[in-house]
Amino acid sequence: MNTYSVKAYGTESKEADLKEMNIERREATPKDVEIEILFCGVCHSDLHTARNDWGGTKYPAVPGHEIVGRITKIGSEVSKFKVGDLAGVGCIVDSCGTCESCKQDLEQYCQTGFVGTYNGKDEHLGGHTFGGYSQKVVVDADHVLKIPENLDLAAVAPLLCAGITTWSPLRHWNVGPNSKVAVVGLGGLGHMAIKLAKGLGAEVTLFSRTPGKTEDAKQLGADHVVISTDDSQMKSVAGKFDVIIDTVPYDHDINPYISTLNINGTHVLVGYLGGLEDIINTVPMIMGRKSVAGSVIGGIAETQEMLDFCGEHNIVSEIEIIKMQEINEAYERMLKSDVRYRFVIDMQSL
Amino acid sequence: MNTYSVKAYGTESKEADLKEMNIERREATPKDVEIEILFCGVCHSDLHTARNDWGGTKYPAVPGHEIVGRITKIGSEVSKFKVGDLAGVGCIVDSCGTCESCKQDLEQYCQTGFVGTYNGKDEHLGGHTFGGYSQKVVVDADHVLKIPENLDLAAVAPLLCAGITTWSPLRHWNVGPNSKVAVVGLGGLGHMAIKLAKGLGAEVTLFSRTPGKTEDAKQLGADHVVISTDDSQMKSVAGKFDVIIDTVPYDHDINPYISTLNINGTHVLVGYLGGLEDIINTVPMIMGRKSVAGSVIGGIAETQEMLDFCGEHNIVSEIEIIKMQEINEAYERMLKSDVRYRFVIDMQSL
Repeated sequence: MNTYSVKAYGTESKEADLKEMNIERREATPKDVEIEILFCGVCHSDLHTARNDWGGTKYPAVPGHEIVGRITKIGSEVSKFKVGDLAGVGCIVDSCGTCESCKQDLEQYCQTGFVGTYNGKDEHLGGHTFGGYSQKVVVDADHVLKIPENLDLAAVAPLLCAGITTWSPLRHWNVGPNSKVAVVGLGGLGHMAIKLAKGLGAEVTLFSRTPGKTEDAKQLGADHVVISTDDSQMKSVAGKFDVIIDTVPYDHDINPYISTLNINGTHVLVGYLGGLEDIINTVPMIMGRKSVAGSVIGGIAETQEMLDFCGEHNIVSEIEIIKMQEINEAYERMLKSDVRYRFVIDMQSL
Repeated sequence: MNTYSVKAYGTESKEADLKEMNIERREATPKDVEIEILFCGVCHSDLHTARNDWGGTKYPAVPGHEIVGRITKIGSEVSKFKVGDLAGVGCIVDSCGTCESCKQDLEQYCQTGFVGTYNGKDEHLGGHTFGGYSQKVVVDADHVLKIPENLDLAAVAPLLCAGITTWSPLRHWNVGPNSKVAVVGLGGLGHMAIKLAKGLGAEVTLFSRTPGKTEDAKQLGADHVVISTDDSQMKSVAGKFDVIIDTVPYDHDINPYISTLNINGTHVLVGYLGGLEDIINTVPMIMGRKSVAGSVIGGIAETQEMLDFCGEHNIVSEIEIIKMQEINEAYERMLKSDVRYRFVIDMQSL
């Protein structure tokens, strides 16, 4: 298979900073599109992968799965796009297409495992996939999204991961105009959860540990802010919520939130992969038919639905644009939650 | 309010055996029916209440909330029943009727708290309610069930708690002919879960710790038995089940069962009220949109639906009939799981 070299930004080991490097992209096959990358959002997963926090990182690692760009080449069998179209790529660049999950447009739960945009198994070139911190990417057209023309392109990028990660559970658990939704944590995921739940017509509450984010949350669309460390505030929302989108990326006690669920309510974990060390009390779950669930990103069709919805409702991420060369500093700031609310790399800087 | 005395079996303290005593029943109000009790099932909750295992028991305690009998008197406003009809009473003898839960026929989640058949707040006489270990009971007609005429009456009694406790989650999580259901634990609840899931057309698997129950489970309708302590058997059902009904009445590690859930599957706890001490791993929940939920008994309309279904499908509980005077010995046997699968008291013995 023919390849060509493009500039990228990646790391050779978990200790090393990210730096400029060259990677190989395949020539577009009949089913592919080639995209010139204009913007790439910076997700916490990028950092965790670069530093091998979850194990399993293959090096060199080139992160980035919130990709927005313009199509520069299309394969002969591709009818969905034309050269010059805007296009997006999220966390998934391939999936089996034949398992029960894929047949239901749930590629994120592909039973043979979807191919991640980076650190996935590259079926075309062997080795592993390289993400969006690069000039170009070549992707199977069925895994490429159409981008609404009316939105700020840089601010669209985070929709491809932070957006769909919160959209999918909101839709799966039927959030609409009569829903009461709470969001735990106001970061990249949390701020999108507020905007999208509000866009769907729900009454939205932010749970935050500190009052400092109240003003921001309300500007993003939250109707209420509840300080989760304040017992009386927590009691005031007992039994209130139909759905809680929990974006907290580390272990935390979910019992206080379960108490704020209404009958039939669901607490959905989207941010933390690991063990919940606090003992979970089954009493409120049983006595209120409450659920604790998890959810990961979303399928391709659902991602398109979300992008179209954002186009119609003028919803984008709140971002800070950085140059590619500023990525290592950006990672350090992310670790301190010093970003409102998502870094996006202007790929022209590479 | 006029009352009359009936014989009952109860206990004066958590240490004491149950013994014969007299209790007062109200004269039927215009909305009530009076029921001569023919059979009363013996639920683990009876034992826990008698011995104050959960705290909050009011003495004297007269347990029993799996009541089947015949109507001996009806109030002037009652049109649903006539004297001589068979009737059943489960765990709920009253509810507010006006909260969001009650308006949805979810009296089990009544937001002001339903009135339990025993140890509940007696709104008529003051004090607390007395259960079915007695000659007669007087209950608001809206909380009384019709009993199919074609079933063995003694074996119907456990449907009023064990039956509805497993029926409600099977129905809420949409179990039908294409479902794969697993049941954890083969006791009073578990054996009903197998029968009802099978009746609904599902493929049913029993999880058991020991091979000893395999033959019984299959006779009850289970298609498969998986020994949960056998890793290779557990691996063979990874990702299989849509719904797991977990009837285990003590703390246990649910992580191995979560691994056997299919995408979108739900593990429903119905037997254990308390803390789950094992650390729950969110990874399989997030990567498979799996849920852990709880469920308690069922509403009046849903209980009637279940009884009608059992009438049509000839489903009853597997029981051992005892005399009222054998109740203390029966409790000891229950603690050793020495019952297949539910004790039912022949109330003529009182």
